[in-house]
Amino acid sequence: MLNTTTSVPLEHLLSAEKLDAIIVSTLVNVRYYTGFTGSNGLLLLTRSGATLFTDPRYATQAPQEVNCSVVVVVGPLLKKLAAKLKSLRKPRIGFEDSKVSFALYQGLSPLGELIPLGNAVEKPRWTKSAGEIAAIRASVNLNSLALEKAMKRFKVGMKEKDLAAEIDYQMRKMGAEGSAFETIIASGAHSALPHARPRGERIAEGGYLLIDMGACLNGYMSDMTRTFGVGRVSREAVRIYKAVLEAQQAAIEAIRPGKRAEQIHAAAMRVLKGHGLAELFIHSTGHGLGLEIHEAPRLGKGDKTELNSGMTITIEPGVYKPGFGGVRIEDTVLVTENGSEVLTPTPKGWTIVG
Amino acid sequence: MLNTTTSVPLEHLLSAEKLDAIIVSTLVNVRYYTGFTGSNGLLLLTRSGATLFTDPRYATQAPQEVNCSVVVVVGPLLKKLAAKLKSLRKPRIGFEDSKVSFALYQGLSPLGELIPLGNAVEKPRWTKSAGEIAAIRASVNLNSLALEKAMKRFKVGMKEKDLAAEIDYQMRKMGAEGSAFETIIASGAHSALPHARPRGERIAEGGYLLIDMGACLNGYMSDMTRTFGVGRVSREAVRIYKAVLEAQQAAIEAIRPGKRAEQIHAAAMRVLKGHGLAELFIHSTGHGLGLEIHEAPRLGKGDKTELNSGMTITIEPGVYKPGFGGVRIEDTVLVTENGSEVLTPTPKGWTIVG
Repeated sequence: MLNTTTSVPLEHLLSAEKLDAIIVSTLVNVRYYTGFTGSNGLLLLTRSGATLFTDPRYATQAPQEVNCSVVVVVGPLLKKLAAKLKSLRKPRIGFEDSKVSFALYQGLSPLGELIPLGNAVEKPRWTKSAGEIAAIRASVNLNSLALEKAMKRFKVGMKEKDLAAEIDYQMRKMGAEGSAFETIIASGAHSALPHARPRGERIAEGGYLLIDMGACLNGYMSDMTRTFGVGRVSREAVRIYKAVLEAQQAAIEAIRPGKRAEQIHAAAMRVLKGHGLAELFIHSTGHGLGLEIHEAPRLGKGDKTELNSGMTITIEPGVYKPGFGGVRIEDTVLVTENGSEVLTPTPKGWTIVG
Repeated sequence: MLNTTTSVPLEHLLSAEKLDAIIVSTLVNVRYYTGFTGSNGLLLLTRSGATLFTDPRYATQAPQEVNCSVVVVVGPLLKKLAAKLKSLRKPRIGFEDSKVSFALYQGLSPLGELIPLGNAVEKPRWTKSAGEIAAIRASVNLNSLALEKAMKRFKVGMKEKDLAAEIDYQMRKMGAEGSAFETIIASGAHSALPHARPRGERIAEGGYLLIDMGACLNGYMSDMTRTFGVGRVSREAVRIYKAVLEAQQAAIEAIRPGKRAEQIHAAAMRVLKGHGLAELFIHSTGHGLGLEIHEAPRLGKGDKTELNSGMTITIEPGVYKPGFGGVRIEDTVLVTENGSEVLTPTPKGWTIVG
């Protein structure tokens, strides 16, 4: 009944957890299981089938997108959904306790016995189907091509914001829905802020140019960071770059099914420690991505999730030296049966631009 | 202690609700009260002051942005926040019950007596300060200018996606962080889908061209829809356009402090009913906007929120005729002491392009 592109049978959860119903309220999960791309929807799965509840704005679109029943509701969706559950006596209802708002939880409470499903609803999303991998690959390729095209227009003295605009434009021109997140362009000392926003400042010679960008194509995300030198830079700048690149490669080499997420982070950290830069590496090494730009696992300390073939993750160690600048190098990587495949085609050797 | 740009004292809620603490976990509310623009933060307000908890990625940025204490936490923020509450005995803690996830609610539960604050934390956001109105005005003007610039490059036969790319590019070039939402370009019969996504299809003569676009500038949103005729169109197409425009103007004229949100919707609906088009008007007439693209109130049936001076809302009735096409006309409007001011400068008379 449910989505064939992902071919993950949410129905199995019904029997596994002895449930009468599952309510999926997180939009991205609704999309994953039904294909619905609208901004308002609730999915109800019972033993008699799946129903998507949405509002009249999607009356035409929803039946085209999904292959389950669609109920178009004027007013609160939950009310109609509740009516559908009425025939069941004290139903056991699975819900997304880690995502549902407390208010929605309160709305659901009278409907039956609520069974928290933890991450069971979204866990299948961590491992991508062949179709999803193809979609991510396409997003990654588009993203790399957008950087290549945008950099052809790069000039020293260009404003950070203008380079960001150029990158986003190239993504859109090639068919992306948009950027996966606000494109980061950070030059000079500003690159020491891991989540810098592009400014009206001009990109000057002598420092780094850090570009963190991702595309959203047919719903699937890509994520890449490249750090360049602008004109002549100091030896220290090159030394830091090479250390981060070594750390990134060590992390990629550490990837294989069965390894735990935190072990990949440890591999990157070990290299940076060797270069005396461990304290300037202030975030985790990466994260899953797919329909969302940040998905599990988190490749950081404490995340013991086992990697498995079909996961798509970022590998993005960074070093941030306040007042000096920062380097981050990031690829989107597929976990394969024997190790990994770096999907990002953009070269990452030390490169001077401008 | 807290944000001076909005000058709304969250502190008042402490005494009004006899609370020992308030935990703000919704990022946009954290931004509103502190100025923090990062992607991970929790705000704790107690009688001894306000503290922002964030992670090391924002160690440099957060203290620059906010004017309260900042605690940089490695690992879960909640743990450190809990430690800060330990000295209080069974504290009464206000929380955003309509926004907090059920999982976070469970994490907060052991910390004290949780008091649901409903919409009290975000309600001050509905009425904009002079600074916020200036920010929205700037965003609206940039948005209109982006449309004007993009339409200079419009040609019949252009792909919907390319026009969307052009619009987003113009926004970025002028300094916007990005679009407030995925720009909608829908031509021909596709315009009958209120939330259409731009396609690879070419924009052909004889139908509508519907453009729904908004900018995000310094965190503040704008929102505008214009519907054009492409070349020669049918009389029916013009008739529907004029009916929607009349409805939009009636709704704008109905705006004044003290009116209820649903009354504005009723004003638009009345006009469309007179034209026999009521059943094709399938969404509400508008919504508040500010730091978020969709804020309260909702100008639709059942929303009895009283309008007041300083609210910024959209007025956007639409008519969607399946298989034929759709028209929506939308402005961003400020509620003033005596009525309203349409902020959107873009003309909205019936216009043929191409």
